[in-house]
Amino acid sequence: MQIARTIAEYRAHRAALLAARAVEGRPGLVGVVPTMGYLHEGHRSLMRCARADCAIVATTIFVNPTQFGPNEDFTRYPRDEARDFAICEAEGVDIVFAPRVEEMYPAGAETTVSVGRLSTVLEGAARPGHFDGVATVVTKLFSIAQADRGYFGQKDAQQLMVIRRLAEDLRIPTEVVGCPIIREPDGLALSSRNVYLSPEEREQALSLSRGLRAAEAAWQDGVRDADSLRRRVLDEIEAQPLANVDYVSLANQGTLDELRGAVGAPALLSLAVRFGATRLIDNILLTP
Amino acid sequence: MQIARTIAEYRAHRAALLAARAVEGRPGLVGVVPTMGYLHEGHRSLMRCARADCAIVATTIFVNPTQFGPNEDFTRYPRDEARDFAICEAEGVDIVFAPRVEEMYPAGAETTVSVGRLSTVLEGAARPGHFDGVATVVTKLFSIAQADRGYFGQKDAQQLMVIRRLAEDLRIPTEVVGCPIIREPDGLALSSRNVYLSPEEREQALSLSRGLRAAEAAWQDGVRDADSLRRRVLDEIEAQPLANVDYVSLANQGTLDELRGAVGAPALLSLAVRFGATRLIDNILLTP
Repeated sequence: MQIARTIAEYRAHRAALLAARAVEGRPGLVGVVPTMGYLHEGHRSLMRCARADCAIVATTIFVNPTQFGPNEDFTRYPRDEARDFAICEAEGVDIVFAPRVEEMYPAGAETTVSVGRLSTVLEGAARPGHFDGVATVVTKLFSIAQADRGYFGQKDAQQLMVIRRLAEDLRIPTEVVGCPIIREPDGLALSSRNVYLSPEEREQALSLSRGLRAAEAAWQDGVRDADSLRRRVLDEIEAQPLANVDYVSLANQGTLDELRGAVGAPALLSLAVRFGATRLIDNILLTP
Repeated sequence: MQIARTIAEYRAHRAALLAARAVEGRPGLVGVVPTMGYLHEGHRSLMRCARADCAIVATTIFVNPTQFGPNEDFTRYPRDEARDFAICEAEGVDIVFAPRVEEMYPAGAETTVSVGRLSTVLEGAARPGHFDGVATVVTKLFSIAQADRGYFGQKDAQQLMVIRRLAEDLRIPTEVVGCPIIREPDGLALSSRNVYLSPEEREQALSLSRGLRAAEAAWQDGVRDADSLRRRVLDEIEAQPLANVDYVSLANQGTLDELRGAVGAPALLSLAVRFGATRLIDNILLTP
């Protein structure tokens, strides 16, 4: 496994591997798994998807400052590079790109990428500027990685939509692949931020997936009213004294327009809930 | 010469040419010359630069609607595709990418690229949103062309700076190459918009290059005062009854900050002047 700190190092490793692994003179696919590190089983599942598809697998580890708000957890966001590198190695990753901030944001950099309305609702409303930061850094990572496919988790459902939109709009030659949410056995969606939770908060945080499953069960029983479906989720979470609901949304899966009345599929049921200073998100797709 | 109307066609032609022209198994360079068509000697000089450097030369022809303001000349911007194709052929261009608007801006597209302060002064101040349109379409064209080098004219000096900035900031693996202004024998900088000028306007428009040359001569004689240098240009232009000056700027070549007092090199002396509805720009770089 190669570790690249600079774009030039990454590109040199990529080119050497492409040449070495060409089959009958044809280069294989390059897959990239962009992450902010502190890797968990969710990230590992993305690496396995990439490993199954691609001749060359790159992972990027970069805690991107521009997607954190001024009062968010950028400085205390969990980091453990040595452990991350070991995980990448174990998953058969070929190149880890782990740049310093200056490599991604050189002095004088002032170009930003914005995805319109999709960026302004739900997570975008709660975290102003967040998706501009995501869109800008992912555009850069795509430029750097020169990958045929990029792998992202469905856990950050709106982020995945924003990234699909920017790749499509900017005609970026990287196919965006979404991969399923990975959960703990008790249902908690994996997140690097789960380490912030106290044992009591963690116990109450199980209400998120429980609420989503309750709504899904109602959906499968034929409930179609948007408020009733949102209510199933809220009932579970609001019963937890430490939980503060940011939003529970049932929205059109293509546009994220909030749904009223009778709901058609596919619809995205998503939520953000705070436990103390820790903000968790989760979602489920309601399909026909 | 291949003509591609779609991204898929372009990429297929590019890949086939790269394979066919590989030398000892190594692909040659790809150069791209983005244009809005109605090609003149200035564009031809860019194609020749690219032809001299690169194994494969692509030209794009696309009148980009998003860089025109609501009261600008998008609909009447001159177009002559058959003539443009013949010029490309004569210059040894390998692929012409001439997409329809829907191929560049698919339904629902809402991603924009913005370069900060550089976009807001001079041409950006006179044409709000212009450089966001330029930055967005050039990012797309770079994603599509997958070129090693992109060739742009120094005539649009600020545009060249914006494009250098976005390519650097977004880590786009295309080197931005600036090429000198091409002028008519009498000094008029070549522009597709010159066709709009009446004979009388065209005669008076010679004051632009004459003014720039007068300031350059003063600079070479040791004049360093910013106002005096700008005055040399203004004196020539303001003597023309049909000329309306938008701006005459003497600015830092890196930042476009307007200069006051004693000027150091390199400094960009640039101007925009209207003759009726036709807006012309020109510039000269004052070097040590």
